[in-house]
Amino acid sequence: MKRRDVLKSFGSGMVAATSLAVGGKALAAKPEFKWKMVTTWPKNFPVLGTNANYLAKTIEEMSGGRIRIKVYGANELVPAFEAFDAVSRGTVEMGHGAPYYWKGKSETAQFFSAIPFGMTAQEVNGWLYYGGGLALWEELYDRFNLVPMATGNTGVQMAGWFRKDINSVDDLKGLKMRIPGLGGEVLSRAGGTPVSMPGGEIFTSLQSGAIDATEWIGPYNDLAFGLYKAAKNYYYPGWHEPGSTLETFVNKQTFESLPKDLQAIVKHACKDASMDMISEFSAKNNAALDTLVNKHQVSVKALPDDVLKKLHWLSNEVVQDIVDRDAFSQKVYASYSSFQQQAIKWSDVSEYAYMRARGLGA
Amino acid sequence: MKRRDVLKSFGSGMVAATSLAVGGKALAAKPEFKWKMVTTWPKNFPVLGTNANYLAKTIEEMSGGRIRIKVYGANELVPAFEAFDAVSRGTVEMGHGAPYYWKGKSETAQFFSAIPFGMTAQEVNGWLYYGGGLALWEELYDRFNLVPMATGNTGVQMAGWFRKDINSVDDLKGLKMRIPGLGGEVLSRAGGTPVSMPGGEIFTSLQSGAIDATEWIGPYNDLAFGLYKAAKNYYYPGWHEPGSTLETFVNKQTFESLPKDLQAIVKHACKDASMDMISEFSAKNNAALDTLVNKHQVSVKALPDDVLKKLHWLSNEVVQDIVDRDAFSQKVYASYSSFQQQAIKWSDVSEYAYMRARGLGA
Repeated sequence: MKRRDVLKSFGSGMVAATSLAVGGKALAAKPEFKWKMVTTWPKNFPVLGTNANYLAKTIEEMSGGRIRIKVYGANELVPAFEAFDAVSRGTVEMGHGAPYYWKGKSETAQFFSAIPFGMTAQEVNGWLYYGGGLALWEELYDRFNLVPMATGNTGVQMAGWFRKDINSVDDLKGLKMRIPGLGGEVLSRAGGTPVSMPGGEIFTSLQSGAIDATEWIGPYNDLAFGLYKAAKNYYYPGWHEPGSTLETFVNKQTFESLPKDLQAIVKHACKDASMDMISEFSAKNNAALDTLVNKHQVSVKALPDDVLKKLHWLSNEVVQDIVDRDAFSQKVYASYSSFQQQAIKWSDVSEYAYMRARGLGA
Repeated sequence: MKRRDVLKSFGSGMVAATSLAVGGKALAAKPEFKWKMVTTWPKNFPVLGTNANYLAKTIEEMSGGRIRIKVYGANELVPAFEAFDAVSRGTVEMGHGAPYYWKGKSETAQFFSAIPFGMTAQEVNGWLYYGGGLALWEELYDRFNLVPMATGNTGVQMAGWFRKDINSVDDLKGLKMRIPGLGGEVLSRAGGTPVSMPGGEIFTSLQSGAIDATEWIGPYNDLAFGLYKAAKNYYYPGWHEPGSTLETFVNKQTFESLPKDLQAIVKHACKDASMDMISEFSAKNNAALDTLVNKHQVSVKALPDDVLKKLHWLSNEVVQDIVDRDAFSQKVYASYSSFQQQAIKWSDVSEYAYMRARGLGA
């Protein structure tokens, strides 16, 4: 590059903003790209919201400040459930949320979050990165001018907080429970009444008896919400969300206008954030469960086997109905379920068999 | 920055090598840092070796070519088990391996790989990233002038290939088995004879009857080795390696001389590669298990409960002996085991309970 060309490049305003590495230090450069990230979580919401902060920080650090991302909590810039449209239109560059929030756009989106009685985090990441799952997700979001990236997973959630015991399938009848999405549809078919409400209303509704039960996430988030004060029966396992995938989505033109190195940084930062989130959930749920049981005397109970089998049967029905009426859902589910069939066989002799063996004691 | 300063900076030769982003494309720049990565795996060894390639490529892409890393298979540049020393001395910049290979340097290193009847991949990543595990690992490797980064996990392995059935603890007596590390020590205390040999010799030794059994990794790698041709009994679960962590280690001065943005790129690329490896193992083990069972008629068998309990008892003894004789091992194990105690309680009601529930059927 000749001196004249160098000066010419600098004249463009683009290169001058590049992070210059001199003498082993990255200079704080003027960012080339100033992005806004809208999220579906309250600002700094534990793990989900803080993971969005972590992601923004990682991208900024790896790019030496060439990308700066300002993270907005739900409703700060746009309402939580308008994040998808805002990024799709290019009003903001980037969003952080959960695919099942967009089922109004496409029923298939739900399958990229979680499927009741579907795959665990480790299994589903195998499908996403090495089983064609992410490519299908990209195909879907491309219709909406978005590039999706898997960004974290909750791991197996809890079944929820119940004011009364669940001893049989009959106890689900008439049960008024805050449970959104596919899980809610399953409860409805079991004779219950699924209710949707924002996180902030759950505690009061459960305490007043306006609802009989609620699911939320897992011990760490549930402890923070104080749900143990409103109901003492904490049921497991979270059959409806056995490993919910979270997401980042970037406006397609915005993403494509990035230099290749910054595209790589954004993509790999999301995968790094995936590892970070499941690890954070793993660590914090451990400790919170201990607090719930030993400090707050919560009763941790297993859903009875016949209840689980009934819910499984109804879950299959709910998924099949979606697959029957939507061609793209059929395509995605064919890929998902064929992967899951093999995944279960391997998990049975690896993760599952090992945890059973460890539990036998010495 | 004034024009004169810009020119001055360019005169340093360092800045000229920076990747310049112009018009949405990263220019292929002369690298600022040319590194060698030595590995403990044969070149392109499935998953373990290819993960090292993936890591090098990710770092190169994210840095816009400012770091170039040439990956060497075991023995190409230095023998497999001299990788640690070579990076420690600064002969090469970076290594990719498994911490238990360095037990000759410190017995504690083994604990960062895997502990028999210890934590699974998901649990151990919680400990590493959010439970203080990685900080302890850094403290250990700092003695050797190295910066360690967790880079991948195998997930639960298989117990191994056996020429004869294992029906009781007595069947372990006199058993000549290729099983290195802590698992080998446990087998020895059970009356067996652990044997160490390089991967390349395993198949012939098993086929000739020179050894009665071998562990290796899991279905995908074991299939590639053709071990099913030498023994038909494929036992689970891999009690000795329930989630082995792999590693990258970088020479400390080399790492510290990087600009902050490139330091971030190297660290986050390793975490990204961690997610990649467990996902690849998850996907490929699924499919390989199917091939082993349905194409090659392998008998997949569970180790009997009393055998598992005996091995668990002996594993606790082996770990306790290390802890008793080595102060740093004691410190690390105190952190590990207190995390594991809570992790098991959470896994019991989440991952484990869910996989059990799913298996009840609909």
